[in-house]
Amino acid sequence: MHNVHVNAEDLLRRQLDLAEINRKKLQAWNVFAVSVMGAIGSGKTSLIERMIDRLSQQGLRVGTIAADSAGDDDHLRFVSHGAESINLNTQDDCHLDAHTVDHAMEKLPMKGLDVLFIENVGNLICPADFPLGTAREVVVISTTEGDDMVRKHPRIFSQADVVVLNKVDLAEAVGMDPERVLADYRQINPHGKALLTDARHEQGIEELMDALGLPCTSTR
Amino acid sequence: MHNVHVNAEDLLRRQLDLAEINRKKLQAWNVFAVSVMGAIGSGKTSLIERMIDRLSQQGLRVGTIAADSAGDDDHLRFVSHGAESINLNTQDDCHLDAHTVDHAMEKLPMKGLDVLFIENVGNLICPADFPLGTAREVVVISTTEGDDMVRKHPRIFSQADVVVLNKVDLAEAVGMDPERVLADYRQINPHGKALLTDARHEQGIEELMDALGLPCTSTR
Repeated sequence: MHNVHVNAEDLLRRQLDLAEINRKKLQAWNVFAVSVMGAIGSGKTSLIERMIDRLSQQGLRVGTIAADSAGDDDHLRFVSHGAESINLNTQDDCHLDAHTVDHAMEKLPMKGLDVLFIENVGNLICPADFPLGTAREVVVISTTEGDDMVRKHPRIFSQADVVVLNKVDLAEAVGMDPERVLADYRQINPHGKALLTDARHEQGIEELMDALGLPCTSTR
Repeated sequence: MHNVHVNAEDLLRRQLDLAEINRKKLQAWNVFAVSVMGAIGSGKTSLIERMIDRLSQQGLRVGTIAADSAGDDDHLRFVSHGAESINLNTQDDCHLDAHTVDHAMEKLPMKGLDVLFIENVGNLICPADFPLGTAREVVVISTTEGDDMVRKHPRIFSQADVVVLNKVDLAEAVGMDPERVLADYRQINPHGKALLTDARHEQGIEELMDALGLPCTSTR
């Protein structure tokens, strides 16, 4: 009989090791992977759709991993935009982990891809502890969520490379001050990039791609 | 040395036992408790504020437990509306559980309260497995989250007594069809109540209170 010792530090170390495996595989395939996190309805899927369109126009091949508790709504949207996509239902799990992503990548034609978007399950708490091994991490929030999002979820925002405040067209209608969110973010993560988008009306997409290190014009 | 057996069924049974303890305590105190779940920014806090106002006007005393990963934004809002409130930071936990609620209730003047609102952490996955022992459960979603919310989170919607689709004033601006969400909900939970609100402009609050079994006029 084994005496099993498990503590939080061991679990995190294990996740970091698994993420490192993904990172090496992605480098070997020469695929630039972006992890997209954010609350339900923040606009993750819409922003990825817009980026797929722009990358495809440049002749780049895009893959997606669409994670949700249930359903295949996001997956089908990515497919309709021409992405090679895998649908991942996490059921009771509120986040992806590196090992699950590794299995999903096995089902994608990774050697033929240039960019991989991994859309995490919609919430700002669980994904924070599970690095996936991607080159970039972006957190999407929406003006309709209120201006206290960063203060309520400091952990995930302190780790993100880029923060997107989406649906800026609705800021005034919902009485929300974008500057307050950006100020909270700058305090928690002085080196991160923050920008405003309106995915529905195609605003700010090029700036987002530039911030992520994705080519947004035909000269790569 | 102990050999510890833990499985999902035991864990759920334990949660149900803890919820039952809360239920009995609430009955003994004669406090009507409502569990409010929903995604970040769906409008949980605003709807509770509106209900606190209406209950206070009838001379009823309201308590709140405000749960968030971090911060005390919601708690301070409840206090400003005159509620007896406890702030609960769950940090890495994406949900409340009955035992945590039991401890929070110890810090509230329960014998002097009529109604207790428990606002859960903002997401639609984790809280589904943790009954709190309240008389009613309501799930709040927002039109800005898109019309696929119910399909993506069948579990939490199948359990809810009431589903609120908030921010109906923005439905047209975000290109969202409320009827589609309501149809999905009716399919998954034929006996649940569903209604539309606009907390910001005080629309639908009385209907919500009525659906929850709360008195919404001065005749209790």
